Amino acid sequence: GPSGGPFSRHGIGRGRLPFSVVSGEDLAAFERIVPGRVITDPEVLEASNVDWLRMVRGSSVLLLRPRTTEEVSHILRHCHERNLAVNPQGGNTGMVGGSVPVFDEVILSTALMNQVISFHDMSDGPVCPCGCGAPSEAQASVQTLPAQRPQWPQWVLADGMVLNCLSTLRKDNTGYDLKQLFIGSEGTLGVITAVSILCPPKPRAVSVAFLGSLCWKMLGEIVSFLVCSLLWGNQSRLWGQSPFYVLIETSGSRAGHDAEKLNDFLEQVLSSGLVTDGTVATDHLKVKALWALRERISEALSRDGYVYKYDLSLPTERLYDLVTDLRVRLGPRAKHVVGYGHLGDGNLHLNVTSEAFSPSVLGTLEPYVYEWTAEQRGSVSAEHGLGFKKRGVLGYSKPPEALRLMQQLKALLDPKGILNPYKTLPAQA
Amino acid sequence: GPSGGPFSRHGIGRGRLPFSVVSGEDLAAFERIVPGRVITDPEVLEASNVDWLRMVRGSSVLLLRPRTTEEVSHILRHCHERNLAVNPQGGNTGMVGGSVPVFDEVILSTALMNQVISFHDMSDGPVCPCGCGAPSEAQASVQTLPAQRPQWPQWVLADGMVLNCLSTLRKDNTGYDLKQLFIGSEGTLGVITAVSILCPPKPRAVSVAFLGSLCWKMLGEIVSFLVCSLLWGNQSRLWGQSPFYVLIETSGSRAGHDAEKLNDFLEQVLSSGLVTDGTVATDHLKVKALWALRERISEALSRDGYVYKYDLSLPTERLYDLVTDLRVRLGPRAKHVVGYGHLGDGNLHLNVTSEAFSPSVLGTLEPYVYEWTAEQRGSVSAEHGLGFKKRGVLGYSKPPEALRLMQQLKALLDPKGILNPYKTLPAQA
Ligand SMILES: Cc1cc2nc3c(=O)[nH]c(=O)nc-3n(C[C@H](O)[C@H](O)[C@H](O)COP(=O)(O)OP(=O)(O)OC[C@H]3O[C@@H](n4cnc5c(N)ncnc54)[C@H](O)[C@@H]3O)c2cc1C
Ligand SMILES: Cc1cc2nc3c(=O)[nH]c(=O)nc-3n(C[C@H](O)[C@H](O)[C@H](O)COP(=O)(O)OP(=O)(O)OC[C@H]3O[C@@H](n4cnc5c(N)ncnc54)[C@H](O)[C@@H]3O)c2cc1C
Repeated sequence: GPSGGPFSRHGIGRGRLPFSVVSGEDLAAFERIVPGRVITDPEVLEASNVDWLRMVRGSSVLLLRPRTTEEVSHILRHCHERNLAVNPQGGNTGMVGGSVPVFDEVILSTALMNQVISFHDMSDGPVCPCGCGAPSEAQASVQTLPAQRPQWPQWVLADGMVLNCLSTLRKDNTGYDLKQLFIGSEGTLGVITAVSILCPPKPRAVSVAFLGSLCWKMLGEIVSFLVCSLLWGNQSRLWGQSPFYVLIETSGSRAGHDAEKLNDFLEQVLSSGLVTDGTVATDHLKVKALWALRERISEALSRDGYVYKYDLSLPTERLYDLVTDLRVRLGPRAKHVVGYGHLGDGNLHLNVTSEAFSPSVLGTLEPYVYEWTAEQRGSVSAEHGLGFKKRGVLGYSKPPEALRLMQQLKALLDPKGILNPYKTLPAQA
Repeated sequence: GPSGGPFSRHGIGRGRLPFSVVSGEDLAAFERIVPGRVITDPEVLEASNVDWLRMVRGSSVLLLRPRTTEEVSHILRHCHERNLAVNPQGGNTGMVGGSVPVFDEVILSTALMNQVISFHDMSDGPVCPCGCGAPSEAQASVQTLPAQRPQWPQWVLADGMVLNCLSTLRKDNTGYDLKQLFIGSEGTLGVITAVSILCPPKPRAVSVAFLGSLCWKMLGEIVSFLVCSLLWGNQSRLWGQSPFYVLIETSGSRAGHDAEKLNDFLEQVLSSGLVTDGTVATDHLKVKALWALRERISEALSRDGYVYKYDLSLPTERLYDLVTDLRVRLGPRAKHVVGYGHLGDGNLHLNVTSEAFSPSVLGTLEPYVYEWTAEQRGSVSAEHGLGFKKRGVLGYSKPPEALRLMQQLKALLDPKGILNPYKTLPAQA
């Protein structure tokens, strides 16, 4: 189990809950369900016990790799009967320690459920519905699309019951929209085994502008999609001298039309003095290189030392105040206080780095950051969920009545509480 | 209560459930909660007892008109304690008899909850979040926008408990997405008292093309938004001679760019012979006049006689087969068999008219239409919900496990079953 250092701060309440321990008979049963895909080798298990950020570590002795929904169903039915806790795991790239066991939960990995079930391309049409076997991969591709939610998932409840509503219909209004409960429930209500997602056709023309600016507020008001990346560390040399950088992507069906609109916009912001320097790319490789500047931030931060990560939704006009405020409060105890995110969405990824984990830095950050966010009626987790690390802070963004209802739903859908038992919802008093 | 004629066919199972009957003491209590807004006048009640299509009629003796969430909460707390059934009602324009009482349910109308709470306009920005007091009005405006779901509703549970998650955040991933359960639950799980909806800015340029065509299939493949309106009755004279008509709306920020794209498209479909005649409008009034052709279909159908209405989702390539099939099956017993809808969404509004209600026509239509739809893995209600008229057909589109889970959710959230008791879910055996 977790102990000492950074772990202790996530306070797991009363410790391991009284679930069963995996027995030899369990192993034999699983071997019958997923022959050859019952992993107990500690070296192979290591990668599944530790999260991407290498900040949360569990001690599971068992990793199962089902290929089909039926196998997932049989695994869960067995775990339910035997009162074994289960940790669903996808790509294990989550940011809040939700994807790894806290103690010895059985790891149920969807890594082998990666085949695309069907792919319907309407060529020049509006959408191509596709059923994807791997929620993690599907989710990854979805991140780059605007406001995409799966149309339909198929999922398995804690007791092994399969709910198969998979379809490629665009519209359906029959009864309650059950899938919505499972999307974003972080493996605490069921295991999603397939999803169908509407994908807009690949735009024919893409332009990216990477611009330096002195003022982030006004930029946020004029561009619709905005990644506001703050200068920090080594990347500053790479990027230039502006205190703020913004990445703007336009996409459409006609390169000429898009270029015209983008040029108009650039003229406007340059002549107003809002933008001081920048570059524009339409070439595929250069577009990729500019996006890499944003995508590498998280990795670069992990190399800077211990990272305190917050993923907040805030009113756009107050977005950056928290960054400047914290720089003053933390002083030299922080190596960097970095803010970036989707400005158009009011989403701030706040990252603070220090040489090593420091209780004093943590004490300055928490609960201050959460209280500040709650005062602005913001969200303490805009994108990343709550998982293990943030389960205690749900109350900053949701009223007690909502928490109670969530606990009731959990009790209804997973009466023994075997699915991701130490995640998402606060430990019950 | 409902009796005879078209009503009997909706089979309300075991009849009125054993709820209390409104007493003089109840009226006095309501008068304290919503003074002056307790309506018992039968003439005023008439409009709330009958649905827009004038096909479902209840016999409620009490209409309440709260103005605030608090008042709704107090009303529900009282009804819950007293075991009084409640029928939430918005604009009463629903198509499935969900908005009117079946027996003597207390009508809780949101008609006076019509003030906009806040409106945040980001001028040139991507969205203007707005909190709207009237779900019905908000919903109405939302219909014209692509795939808009409320960001946040506020709602009151059956026992009067208020869930206030209202906010204008674009992103929030803390805990279960509770609001999704209530959206589309047709007043059976709670009463929504406020919503916040992201509205894209009004497009600066709008063009509408209204085109006649011999072939609907190919059109469906090349245009992204398509209303396929079939020639019928009087409107045929108005419209022209083509068997199919399609309405295409483009909207963007630059009239010049949009016109260029639309002209290219028109050239293409005209030269291919796909489109035979048509007209294009950019002028506001002419745009409105063209849209009116679509919007008046439902009203015109009601004047044609008794209307059997179906709102189906189907695979696009089979969409129209059902219409031609039914014309043959029904022969002269039907005045018109009309299909229209959003072809891009695979949504077919199927309408059959006959001189008067005829059990023989109904027998030919049902369960045939539902079975045909289920075979295509379609949805038996794409947009309109199930309400009272379609509650029995949920099983054609959702598996038994899903139905059971819906019943469990209903029991959890409304244990006495006082909210819209005869709607959405099938009568329990
Ligand atoms: C470099 C980098 C960049 C990132 N950028 C972004 C970003 O821009 N936006 C963003 O939102 N996130 C971002 N993330 C976070 C993370 O990648 C995403 O949230 C990702 O979608 C998680 O998917 P996964 O398959 O790895 O899930 P995991 O990490 O494996 O699991 C996440 C949670 O889902 C549960 N889960 C996994 N599979 C299932 C299943 N089949 N059924 C039910 N529950 C399941 C797990 O138990 C866990 O609670 C980034 C991560 C990295 C490493
Ligand atoms: C001419 C015309 C055209 C239409 N076109 C379309 C269309 O294109 N697409 C489409 O989807 N629909 C269409 N409709 C159907 C209907 O107008 C819409 O579904 C409309 O949004 C219903 O809103 P309402 O406020 O009138 O709800 P109502 O009819 O009053 O109620 C509908 C259901 O919601 C429940 N309800 C109402 N208020 C609340 C509340 N506050 N909380 C909880 N439950 C509540 C009711 O109990 C009922 O079950 C059309 C209707 C007409 C008359």
